[in-house]
Amino acid sequence: MHCKFISFTYYFCNKFYKLDLIMKKNMEYLASLRQIMKNQGVDAVIISGTDPHQSENPPRHWRGREWITSFESDNGTNGTAVVLADKAYCWTDSRYFIQATDQLRDTGFEMMKEDGPDAVNLIDWVTENLPAGATVAIDGMTFSVSWAQRLQQELNDNNIKLNDTFTFFDQIWPDRPARPNNKLFVHDEEIVGETVDSKVSRLNTEVKAELANAVLLSSLDDIAWVTNLRTANDIGYSPVFVAYLYIDENRRTLFVDADKLTPEVNAHLAKYNFEVKPYESVLDFVAQLPKETRLLVDPAKTARLLYEKISCTPVFGGSRLAKLKSVKNDTMVSHLKTAMQKDGVALVKFFMEVEKEYPSGTLTEYGLGKLLRQCRLADPTCVDESFASIIGWNAHGAIVHYEATPETDIPVTGNGLLLVDSGGQYIYGTTDITRTIALGEVSDKERHDYTLVLKGHIALAMARYPKGTRGTQLDVLARQYLWNEGKAYYHGTGHGVGFFINVHEGPQGIRMNDIPVALEPGMITSNEPGLYLEGEYGIRLENLIVTRPWQTTEFGEFYDFETITLFPFDSSLIEKEILTPTETAWLNDYHAKVLAELSPLLNPTEQAWLVAKCAKI
Amino acid sequence: MHCKFISFTYYFCNKFYKLDLIMKKNMEYLASLRQIMKNQGVDAVIISGTDPHQSENPPRHWRGREWITSFESDNGTNGTAVVLADKAYCWTDSRYFIQATDQLRDTGFEMMKEDGPDAVNLIDWVTENLPAGATVAIDGMTFSVSWAQRLQQELNDNNIKLNDTFTFFDQIWPDRPARPNNKLFVHDEEIVGETVDSKVSRLNTEVKAELANAVLLSSLDDIAWVTNLRTANDIGYSPVFVAYLYIDENRRTLFVDADKLTPEVNAHLAKYNFEVKPYESVLDFVAQLPKETRLLVDPAKTARLLYEKISCTPVFGGSRLAKLKSVKNDTMVSHLKTAMQKDGVALVKFFMEVEKEYPSGTLTEYGLGKLLRQCRLADPTCVDESFASIIGWNAHGAIVHYEATPETDIPVTGNGLLLVDSGGQYIYGTTDITRTIALGEVSDKERHDYTLVLKGHIALAMARYPKGTRGTQLDVLARQYLWNEGKAYYHGTGHGVGFFINVHEGPQGIRMNDIPVALEPGMITSNEPGLYLEGEYGIRLENLIVTRPWQTTEFGEFYDFETITLFPFDSSLIEKEILTPTETAWLNDYHAKVLAELSPLLNPTEQAWLVAKCAKI
Repeated sequence: MHCKFISFTYYFCNKFYKLDLIMKKNMEYLASLRQIMKNQGVDAVIISGTDPHQSENPPRHWRGREWITSFESDNGTNGTAVVLADKAYCWTDSRYFIQATDQLRDTGFEMMKEDGPDAVNLIDWVTENLPAGATVAIDGMTFSVSWAQRLQQELNDNNIKLNDTFTFFDQIWPDRPARPNNKLFVHDEEIVGETVDSKVSRLNTEVKAELANAVLLSSLDDIAWVTNLRTANDIGYSPVFVAYLYIDENRRTLFVDADKLTPEVNAHLAKYNFEVKPYESVLDFVAQLPKETRLLVDPAKTARLLYEKISCTPVFGGSRLAKLKSVKNDTMVSHLKTAMQKDGVALVKFFMEVEKEYPSGTLTEYGLGKLLRQCRLADPTCVDESFASIIGWNAHGAIVHYEATPETDIPVTGNGLLLVDSGGQYIYGTTDITRTIALGEVSDKERHDYTLVLKGHIALAMARYPKGTRGTQLDVLARQYLWNEGKAYYHGTGHGVGFFINVHEGPQGIRMNDIPVALEPGMITSNEPGLYLEGEYGIRLENLIVTRPWQTTEFGEFYDFETITLFPFDSSLIEKEILTPTETAWLNDYHAKVLAELSPLLNPTEQAWLVAKCAKI
Repeated sequence: MHCKFISFTYYFCNKFYKLDLIMKKNMEYLASLRQIMKNQGVDAVIISGTDPHQSENPPRHWRGREWITSFESDNGTNGTAVVLADKAYCWTDSRYFIQATDQLRDTGFEMMKEDGPDAVNLIDWVTENLPAGATVAIDGMTFSVSWAQRLQQELNDNNIKLNDTFTFFDQIWPDRPARPNNKLFVHDEEIVGETVDSKVSRLNTEVKAELANAVLLSSLDDIAWVTNLRTANDIGYSPVFVAYLYIDENRRTLFVDADKLTPEVNAHLAKYNFEVKPYESVLDFVAQLPKETRLLVDPAKTARLLYEKISCTPVFGGSRLAKLKSVKNDTMVSHLKTAMQKDGVALVKFFMEVEKEYPSGTLTEYGLGKLLRQCRLADPTCVDESFASIIGWNAHGAIVHYEATPETDIPVTGNGLLLVDSGGQYIYGTTDITRTIALGEVSDKERHDYTLVLKGHIALAMARYPKGTRGTQLDVLARQYLWNEGKAYYHGTGHGVGFFINVHEGPQGIRMNDIPVALEPGMITSNEPGLYLEGEYGIRLENLIVTRPWQTTEFGEFYDFETITLFPFDSSLIEKEILTPTETAWLNDYHAKVLAELSPLLNPTEQAWLVAKCAKI
C-alpha cells in the first residue's frame, strides 16, 4: 500500500454518499454541541480526528470527528474540525479536497485546505478569527503534546484562553460505539524470535540512552510490540489493542480493560512480571510517580492531558524506540517469508478467478474486493486484511486512494488495466503487495508506462548501498525512468512495514522528502513506484524488501535488499525492448523464485497457471 | 574542485614542513600571549580560524590562528585554537589529523579532533576544563553570532565569564600583514547582465519577505555580487574585497577602505547612490540606526561584536538572499560559456605539454602546477586561479585535499594516473574542472574504475527531474555504479559555483546529506564523482552543469542539466564494454561539442591533438 504521507497529489477519491438523512442529523448534532459550548462559555471547539494514542487508524469509539462531519477519510484520522457559535469547518489535505467537498455538503461544515496554494493554517485561523478573551476548547486526550503546545503558544500570544478538558461526544452521540473489548492473545515467541524480557531490556537501554529512567508508551503498535500481545477486530486492519504501558527497571504496568484478558494472556503477563491496571487509571498513575522518575514520553504520540498529569520529570524523546521495532530479527524475516508464500497462494487463487470470470462480464471492483478478502482469510493464520484493498479498474486505478464501495463500484469489462493493492495480517507477519494486470487488449502506451514503472521497481530492488544510507538517497532509482520521459508519481516509493502490527510503520522511508533515518539490516520497506493518468489508468508495482548485509570492502560495509514478496508481474504488459539484459535477468530470476516457492502449495491447475505466468521473457 | 564539507574521509594531506625555526617562534608567541592573558585576567582564549566576514578563505591579515599554531589547513579557516595558562590546543577535522599532528609538533599546541570516533566538542571541553568564575576570551569580531551564542549559553550554565573583546595579534605578531588594500574595479554590467539597481531592488524584496526593512551584509561574496565590484589579490583565488554593506529602501552604504577606490569605482558607486564610509565605522553606524529599523542579519555570517552593537531590532535570516546570488541569468550563463572556452584552450595547451614532456622524465607535480597557472593566466581575462590546483600523481591522487608543494613534490614518471583539479577566475565567470589522465601503461583495474566514475558522471549529467527536486535526491545517480561494486567516495558530488566570485557557493548542493534547497534554472553546480584507492591512485571527473527548464508535461515542470565545461575525457581509460549505448552516445556528443567549441581558438597542431582526443569511441 502506498504511503499515506503524500506531498502532492493530483488524484482524489470520488465516493458519493446519499446525503439526505445525514444532512439533518449533522445539523442536529451541531445544535446540541453548540448548546454545551454556550453553557460552558466556550467560543470555539477544535475536534481531533484521532484517539488518545494518536493512532493512524483509531477505533470507531474515537471517530467522533468523522461522525459529526460525515467526512470519511481513509481511516478517520485525516480531518480536524472547528466549531464556532455560528459556523463550522473541517480541515483536510489535497488528497481529499473533492471527496470532502461532496461529503460536507449541507452538513453545516465547510471544507478548509490544509495544503496546496490556498492552504489555511488551522491554528493561525483560529487565533485570527477569535477576539482576545475568547475561549478555545479541545479534548486534551485526543491531541498530542507537541500539537497542543503550538496551539497554546499561539493562543497565549493572542490572549485567548484554552480549555483542554472539553468532552461532549458522550452527551450528543447516540449509540456511540464503546471502546473495543475483544480478547487479547499471545503472539507466539517462536514466531517473534524474542522474549518480552529481551525486548524490555533493550527498551530500557534505549530509555537510559535518552537520559530517562522510565517510559510511558501510548502508541498502540509500540505496546503490542513490547508485550507480544495482539487482538483481532479492536481496530480494522490492525491487530493492536487499546492500552498504555509503563516500564522502568523494576516495574512493568499495563493499563488495559480487564475483560480483554484471557487466562492465557494473564499467565503471559504474570510470567513477564507485568502488573495490570484499569485502562483509565493511567492518569492517576502518572500523577503519582515519584519525583526522581525521569519519564520518557514521545511528544508526538502522547496526549496533552496525560502529559499535563505527570508528576515527575518528563523527558521528550522516543526516536530510538521506533528503531527497535523497525529492525526485524532473522526469525521474524524467516516467518514473514512463510506469510509471503501464503499471500502468494491467495493471490494465485484470486487472479486465476479474475481471469476466468472476466470474459463473463460479471466482475465488479467491489465484488473483487470481497473475493480477495475471502482468498486471504481462507488461511487460518490470516487474522485480517492489513488495509482496505484498493481495486481500481482503468480510471479508478489512477485514484491513488480509491476504495471501491457499493456507491463507486463499476464493472470490470472492456479492455484495460486492473490495479490491485492489498495485504494480509498473518500471525507470521504483515504483507502489502500491488500488482497491475491487463485484461483484454493492451495498448502500446500502457505497456510502455508499465515497463517504466517496472524498471524503477527493479532498480530499487537491485540497489547496493553503504551503511548509513537513508531511503531518500535511493528514492530516485525508482523514479528516474519516468522522470526521463517527463512522467512522475508524487507519493512515497517506500514505507516501513510492521510485523503483524501496522502496515505503515516508521521510522524509515524511501521518499522524496528527507527522513533522517538510515536503512538498517532487518528493516522491511515497501518498493512501490507507480504512474497515474487521470481519467485513464493507474499502474503501481509493489513488493516488500528487506535490508540485509551484502559485503564489507575497503570502502566500508555495504547493504542490499532482498525482495520477499512472491507473485509474478504481468509479462504481457512488458515492453521487452526497453529492459536491459540485467533487468530481464532480474525479472526471470524473480519469477523462477516465485514459481519455486509457491508451486509446492498449489494444486496442479494452479501450478500450470503459475508456470505460464512465470515463463522467461 | 570537490566540496570541502566532507562527512567522512579516508585521506589526508601529508605535507611535511621544516619545523626547527617555527618551533622556537611558536613558544615565544605563546609566552607573549599568556602574558597579555595574565595582565587582563583571562584564563582561556579561543582563537578563530576566520575573519570578521566568516570567510572560507580569509585574507592573511586574519590568519592569526594559522600563524600562531603553524597548522596550515587548505585556506586557513579550518582549525580553532584554545590557549590556557599552561596548555594550548588546536581543533581540526579528520581531513587534517595527520597533517596537523605533524605541523603542531613542538609548537606548544596539541591537536584535538573535531569529528570521528574520538571527537571532542570544543565548547564542551572548555566549560568542563575551567572552574566556575573563570574568564574565557574571544575576539568577538571573528566569531559568528550563532557560534558565540552557543558558547555564551554553555559558559553561563557553568558560571564562566565571557570577554568577547579580547584582541592581541597586533601586539604579538611581528610583521602582521595589513588588511589588503588592492584597488577595486567594476565588473562590467554587460557581462553580469544586471544593474546594481536591479539587484538592490530584488534584495529589498527579499528583505521585506523576511519581515525586515534593512539589511547588513557581512559576507564578502554577497557584497561583491550586489555592488558588481571586484578586486584582484585581496584574497588568494577569490576576487572579493573586504567591506560591509548596508541597504534599506533609501540608503546604500558601503564600508570600505577609501584607498581601494579608483575614480571609475567612485563614479560607479555615485551612479548607484552609494555613500562610502570607512570600513571600521560600521560598528558606530549600526549603533546609531533608528529604533524602527528592522535589520536583517545572517547569524552564521555576522560577527558577534557587530551584532552586539546593533541599536535597532535585529532580524535573523538570509537564506533567501543566498538564492538570489546562486541563480545566474542568461547573460551570465552565456558569458560563462566563453570562460569555459578559454579554460578549455588553457587545458589543451597544458595537457599537450604534459604528454610532450612526460617521456623526458622531468615533470613533477609542483612544476605542473606552475605550468597550469601560466596556461590559464595567459588569457588577460583570467584574474587568478579559482583555488589552489590539486595535481596528484598516482598515490597522491588518492589524497582528496592534496596540494603539491616543494616539500611534497614527486616526479611524474613511470605508469599511472594523473589527477588535475583546477579552475580559473575569469571576468566571464569562475571555472572548476577535474580530469584524470593516464600516462604510460594503464591497468584494467584503473580503466574499470575510471569507467565506473565516468558512468556516474554521465548519469548525473543526463538527469531530468521535476521542479522542486533537491540535489540530494539526484546524488545517488553519480554513485550507483561504484556502490554496485562495493566502492564509494565520501565527498559531495556537487557544490554551487559563484560567478567570478567564490568557487564554492551555496545554497544548493548535490550531496549525501540533505540540503533543503531545490535546484533552480540558472544554478551552476559541479558534477564530480570520484574514487580514491589509498596508496594507489585517485580518479575524479568534474564538469560544471547548469540547471535549465526542459519540458512541462501533465506531471509538472521538468528541468535538466546543460554541461558547460569543455574538455575531453581520456578515452584510453574507458572500458567500452561496460558503457551502455546511451552513455557512449552522450560521450561522443560531448566530445563533438568540445571539439566544435574549442577548435576555432586553437592552432593547427592543437586542433589535430584535440581531434584525436575527441575521436568517437
